Amino acid sequence: MELLRTLDRQINKILLLKTGHGDKRIDNIIQLARDNSIPFSFVPKEQFKKFQEYSHQGVIAFVSPVKYIELEDFLEKTKNKQYKKIIVLDEVEDPHNVGSIIRTAVCAGYDAVILPKRRCSMINATVEKSSAGAINHIDIVAVNSIQNAIVTLKDNDFWIIASVIDAKDNYFDIDYTDMNFAIILGNEKSGISRTIVKNSDFWVKIPIETDFDSLNVANAASVIIYESVKQKIIKDKKFYDN
Amino acid sequence: MELLRTLDRQINKILLLKTGHGDKRIDNIIQLARDNSIPFSFVPKEQFKKFQEYSHQGVIAFVSPVKYIELEDFLEKTKNKQYKKIIVLDEVEDPHNVGSIIRTAVCAGYDAVILPKRRCSMINATVEKSSAGAINHIDIVAVNSIQNAIVTLKDNDFWIIASVIDAKDNYFDIDYTDMNFAIILGNEKSGISRTIVKNSDFWVKIPIETDFDSLNVANAASVIIYESVKQKIIKDKKFYDN
Repeated sequence: MELLRTLDRQINKILLLKTGHGDKRIDNIIQLARDNSIPFSFVPKEQFKKFQEYSHQGVIAFVSPVKYIELEDFLEKTKNKQYKKIIVLDEVEDPHNVGSIIRTAVCAGYDAVILPKRRCSMINATVEKSSAGAINHIDIVAVNSIQNAIVTLKDNDFWIIASVIDAKDNYFDIDYTDMNFAIILGNEKSGISRTIVKNSDFWVKIPIETDFDSLNVANAASVIIYESVKQKIIKDKKFYDN
Repeated sequence: MELLRTLDRQINKILLLKTGHGDKRIDNIIQLARDNSIPFSFVPKEQFKKFQEYSHQGVIAFVSPVKYIELEDFLEKTKNKQYKKIIVLDEVEDPHNVGSIIRTAVCAGYDAVILPKRRCSMINATVEKSSAGAINHIDIVAVNSIQNAIVTLKDNDFWIIASVIDAKDNYFDIDYTDMNFAIILGNEKSGISRTIVKNSDFWVKIPIETDFDSLNVANAASVIIYESVKQKIIKDKKFYDN
């Protein structure tokens, strides 16, 4: 009930134990679920058995483990912060990769990870586990369109860096230390969608020293993210040394 | 038969279809399996059904997807190569991590990945998949003892770099461009074993910008590995520019 009132986390569906008689409490839950367009269904006792380890009282809600934030709210919240750093996931599919990229972003002190709303089902238990709990330490921004998000970011003084296999510049050829930036990472197989690549300000690649394939996307993310961390540390050190 | 003769790949076990009569071919296989201490067993027809997609002729061998090489053979083979680069996995457990570290090592043009023999069961289908096939593009060295391997490496003019969370130096504080080196990565939870840390020449950390946890070991590996790639590219560029 509390969760249905606050909607603090996205509720994906609700299962209710099928019983013979009406129950005021259950009626309230159904009403709130209807009001908030949350799918619910009644299931027989046998199907509830698998939840017996929980103290369920006849109600099970499937909840997203993460609290999303809208892009506009994120930008408003961070408007006074200098040099914001964001990761944008364009169609990254493997939940292990999503989780481990979020974990690296948190370790590197990044401000947000943006991902498409239709992929938010991705933020499931595997993602949470792969992130080692990191998803609750960074803003996860869910957007309807990555393309529109990029336009909004550009309007808000962000530089867009696309990780592209056949880019001319290496990832270490650009200076990450004096701008707001968003690094875009693409699908494991097909990379970043063409329109998004075209709308980016920088294209960077990670050099491959053999004729073999490319890096796993989460590893690629770490390499680029930590180049930005390293540049900042070295710059700050030079500043304090002088 | 060919595999049993060449022993080109490690055979983990052999299953034989239980039939009523003797078969010379099967007898030969049994003899060779006995000679090479490869476990085998006879199984009934029903259990063979799951292999029906293969043209098995009543024999199924479970083969390691990778060909291992002994450390001594690797050192002999590469003795004339300058500046060799190796990854050592001390107790890395998750096969996704092992596979993805091997993939990064291949992309970065490293020479070998060393791992403990008792962990070689780790080189299973998950590792192969996570490596995106990379395990066949690099020498995988299986050793009885990582500790002994490190002694051997030091005797062979390798510098040992341990990735340690509480190291004083950052991973970018050392020069990877003019030495043979081996980067050691440790267990996901407990890190590198104490004796091995003690026997290392350098301790490096990846700076964490929040009070959160540490990086996933495969991502940490990529960050350090690519720092070495980057240093080499920049050094070569300077050389050619001058």
